[in-house]
Order: sequence, then structure tokens, then C-alpha cells
Amino acid sequence: MKFCPCCAQPVVRKIPEGDHLIRFVCETCNLVHYDNPRTIVGCVPAWQDQVLLCRRAIHPRHGYWTLPAGFLENGETTRQGAIRETLEEANARVEIDALYRLFDLPHIHQIHVFFRARLLDLDFSPGIESLETRLFTEAEIPWDELAFHTVRLTLQDYFADRRRDDYPPRDLDVRPGAR
Amino acid sequence: MKFCPCCAQPVVRKIPEGDHLIRFVCETCNLVHYDNPRTIVGCVPAWQDQVLLCRRAIHPRHGYWTLPAGFLENGETTRQGAIRETLEEANARVEIDALYRLFDLPHIHQIHVFFRARLLDLDFSPGIESLETRLFTEAEIPWDELAFHTVRLTLQDYFADRRRDDYPPRDLDVRPGAR
Repeated sequence: MKFCPCCAQPVVRKIPEGDHLIRFVCETCNLVHYDNPRTIVGCVPAWQDQVLLCRRAIHPRHGYWTLPAGFLENGETTRQGAIRETLEEANARVEIDALYRLFDLPHIHQIHVFFRARLLDLDFSPGIESLETRLFTEAEIPWDELAFHTVRLTLQDYFADRRRDDYPPRDLDVRPGAR
Repeated sequence: MKFCPCCAQPVVRKIPEGDHLIRFVCETCNLVHYDNPRTIVGCVPAWQDQVLLCRRAIHPRHGYWTLPAGFLENGETTRQGAIRETLEEANARVEIDALYRLFDLPHIHQIHVFFRARLLDLDFSPGIESLETRLFTEAEIPWDELAFHTVRLTLQDYFADRRRDDYPPRDLDVRPGAR
């Protein structure tokens, strides 16, 4: 940010009074322009012992496999966002079961929230952001071709939990070096 | 947003190619300026059968009681944010136990994440944003003077779960009218 989005005057970087972090401040408007972490929402779309993955047609990680997920939008709930992303990326309809994982990625200013979900039918196909959509059993998961670390962790935990039929939700810190 | 934060030219509101929502777009920079939901992080700081609350010295809800919580900052995890807010608002040190509640408030573009936590000592006092800090048993909670609906729901669930000594994490939709 170089200019105030409200008045177009240059902003300065400083710690506002009563604050403790450097922010972009407009000294004309007396406005502080905050920048906060963004939330990615997605789901594990299950069909019997299989999970639906999408092969990415976009950067980053073009050509790699992922769970359907994307940025949470204003005006929607995290569940609605996960359902929408699954429809957009895989033309697939899901019902959300429960919260599953919350990942912290503070180095890239993101949190990733994944839900467990059930595919409602097998009428899925690649959306505009996908090259391919396919169901995988645990043995078939392309572990070396997964797009993101949080997708790998979610799938590993999901199949382990599936053997116990118990899926406790939890949060995980996935900063580089955190595990 | 009226002006591009990068070049100070006026932005337009339109649906970018390949998108489905109206965004602020700079046609000079060819940049889309996204606006996404923000995350509030907080905790339930427990000491035996009591919970630490803060009476707010700031707007909104000046004078009302709340759990320590505030905006997640870039570069920190949700747990770190909850610990930091508890230190700032109540000069209190906590250890986080586990994820507890994720609330969706899509009407105000927020999600609220609460953890269960244990107070490490009784050396707490009002921070700059608090008028008063106090431990409350369930019977003492000022239910009619709580600052936020998500604080009320978290405390209700927390004390109910405490009787069972089982605190399953879950997400809840708290749009007006959602419950």
C-alpha cells in the first residue's frame, strides 16, 4: 500500500497511538489501514472409502492435486465457502459433516479451515480451475503430487481417523519448521 | 475504497474476468483489491471453576464484560493471538488447552475463534482496553452484561461441557436469526 484508498494521498508506516504494530496510516484522513490474515476454506469430500481431489489448472501448484478449497468471501459462512469452492472446482455437491482442521500459516498470513463432507452424488467434473477431478482410496492418493502441506496433513489424519471412525477436530501450526 | 492503494487512480467496482463477485479493480494497474473476512481470536481463561472476564474500556460495548479476544494479526498463529490478547486486556498469562469454538458472523465479515485455556497465575489486572478484570464462577457470570453473543454462547457451552469434563470443538453459525 502506497496511497490511501479513501483520499489517494500517500500513506506512512508507523505505530498508531495506543497500538503496538507498524500500520499503514493516512495522516490526511486519520485512518489506519489494517492488513489481516485471510482464511482459506475447504472440505474432504468423501464417498464411501474414497475422497474427491482436484488437479489444479491454476498457479500456484499447477498440475498438482488438492482438496477443493479457496478464500472465504465476505458474507458467507466457512461451511458455505467450503460448499461453494467444491462446486466451483469440481462441480460437486456436498453436505458438510463437521469442522475437522484449523491450520495456522502465519508466515503467509493465512489460516486454512477444512470440514469433513459427504458427496451427495457422483456427478462431478473439473471446474474452470481444475484439470481433472477423481475419487481416490487411501492407497491411490498421489502423495507425491499433492499441492499443499495442509492438504497432505488433512488427508493423512482423515484416513487414520477413518479407521477408528472418530474424527476429533483440532488446530495445527504448520509454520516452516513447526513440525 | 475509492482509490487504488498502489497508484492512487480511482478504482471501479466490477466482476473481474473469471470471477463471480463484484470487486474493487484498478484498471490502471490491472489489480483486483480483495476484501476478505477478518478473524477474532480469544480464549476462555479458566482457574479451577472460575473464568476470567474483562469489562471493556473501549467501544463497541463499553462497560460490558467479555472474554479476552481481538483481531488476529499477520505473522501470528491463532493460539499466539489468543495469548497476546489475554496479556493485553487482562495482563494475564495463559496456556492454551485446545480449540473450542469457531463462530461464523458473515453479516459483519468476521469469524471468531475461541480456545480453552488455563490461567498460569492470579497476577492479572486491567490492561489499557479494560476497566476491570475478575474471575467468575458460573453462578456469578453477569449474563445480562456480556458484550457479545459469541461470548455468551462460548460461556454457556463451556460451563455445560465442564460438568461432563468433555469439551468437543465445533463451529456455529451466529448470523442474526440463525439460532
